[in-house]
Amino acid sequence: MIGRKYLNSDDAILPLYNHLLLTETQRDRIDVVLVSPRNPLNIGAAARAMANFGFSRLAIVAPYAPHWREARSAIGAPELLAAATETATLAEAVTGCTLVVGTGTVTHRKPEQTVVSLPDLAPLVSRELARGGRVAVVFGPEKHGLTREDLSYCHLLVEIPTDLRQPSMNLGQAVAVCLYELACRAFLPEKGAPEAVADGVRSTAPSGDLELLAGVVEEVMTATGYSPRSMQPANRHDLRLLLRRLALNKRDARRVMGLFRRILWRLKH
Amino acid sequence: MIGRKYLNSDDAILPLYNHLLLTETQRDRIDVVLVSPRNPLNIGAAARAMANFGFSRLAIVAPYAPHWREARSAIGAPELLAAATETATLAEAVTGCTLVVGTGTVTHRKPEQTVVSLPDLAPLVSRELARGGRVAVVFGPEKHGLTREDLSYCHLLVEIPTDLRQPSMNLGQAVAVCLYELACRAFLPEKGAPEAVADGVRSTAPSGDLELLAGVVEEVMTATGYSPRSMQPANRHDLRLLLRRLALNKRDARRVMGLFRRILWRLKH
Repeated sequence: MIGRKYLNSDDAILPLYNHLLLTETQRDRIDVVLVSPRNPLNIGAAARAMANFGFSRLAIVAPYAPHWREARSAIGAPELLAAATETATLAEAVTGCTLVVGTGTVTHRKPEQTVVSLPDLAPLVSRELARGGRVAVVFGPEKHGLTREDLSYCHLLVEIPTDLRQPSMNLGQAVAVCLYELACRAFLPEKGAPEAVADGVRSTAPSGDLELLAGVVEEVMTATGYSPRSMQPANRHDLRLLLRRLALNKRDARRVMGLFRRILWRLKH
Repeated sequence: MIGRKYLNSDDAILPLYNHLLLTETQRDRIDVVLVSPRNPLNIGAAARAMANFGFSRLAIVAPYAPHWREARSAIGAPELLAAATETATLAEAVTGCTLVVGTGTVTHRKPEQTVVSLPDLAPLVSRELARGGRVAVVFGPEKHGLTREDLSYCHLLVEIPTDLRQPSMNLGQAVAVCLYELACRAFLPEKGAPEAVADGVRSTAPSGDLELLAGVVEEVMTATGYSPRSMQPANRHDLRLLLRRLALNKRDARRVMGLFRRILWRLKH
């Protein structure tokens, strides 16, 4: 249906077109990440929605093994299920991503990062793709959604606008709605991406680089006695969020890393 | 989440808001119609998506009774399932509707009416609501979608843009995507609807009026020998489509009806 036109009726109301705006190459730079999904039917439904909207990169974090096996071997399961990657932690799943988008409702908690409504997400994703970045859209388990720890790896929290009386969506339906929005509304200018990929100034540091940096900064905090033992988990959490808020480009992330390594060396000698 | 603002982060990228654009009163003038759904899980999923996006009017056409009973009595089923109407035919389900929107893919057949892509649907629905009309969004059975006969009751066919390699969506996910689009992108100006409701000039004739008119026109076609017996089913089909293309307002529909009744009376006396 991509790019086909239907003008069969003699009283067309609108010029007609029906296409996915993102190209296949662009969609290949968007990962769908399911954290600990429980229901094999939901895993299958998420994979089907991906296939419908032309996405192919699926990562599953810490799945319940029997259900994951069942979903993977279901009759008629899309090919992308067989090719899905499996990781123990969310940090590993998003290590190469420069924009990590968490999904969920923020009804019961105060979010620690920027929240955008789904209809406003596409321009942000487009901008990241134009810079040569890689995007992850992360969905939590059916029962309670993403944890505070999961969300600390996210640059943004996206919320699907829903009715207050029934805000919580089914996982497969939430994936379908988010991917529909990105496939049909994220728009990338024809040029821009290729030369940006290798450009350390304009391209954002990927999640894995930020994790390495956070490790070194934490060592410095400990070595200088800045962070007492009892505060370490809370400080690690806040540091993770802070580094994502800074939106460091690759070159600056390397510079900050160099500085903190130097500090560490001086402290030890 | 309606109208709430989240500005907790100190580096907000966008002004944040998260709302359903249509008001509850407006959403109450949009009916969701499922024609012969087979899988109780899909009926439940469709109902859940309706509750998520604040829609409450569900009609089921010719359901398979045991599955419909099962879906209706499922634990945690939204209230709107209990309140759903059940009709034997699609004509009855949409009798009060002035804009009937069929859903599906047109991959294998040449559609007989205007096709719009889902991202272009919202303005058409907004316009119909502003005129005081009532809208139906119709979904076909899982296996083969809406039949040619079903589609002859539709003013428009809406298509969800999907990947050519996997165009066919799961029913519950298709309902979620369509309702997300309408709830978040159909926009109605503050005024306009109330005074238009009783206005026969600006408001479109509902589906039931068109059916009555079609019946009288068909009688005339038969009485004048215009339509030989063998052509009657095909002519009835084309007449139904023609009357919807004309987009008759209520007053003109009454006028045309009056003329054809008069013709019929003359033919018989």
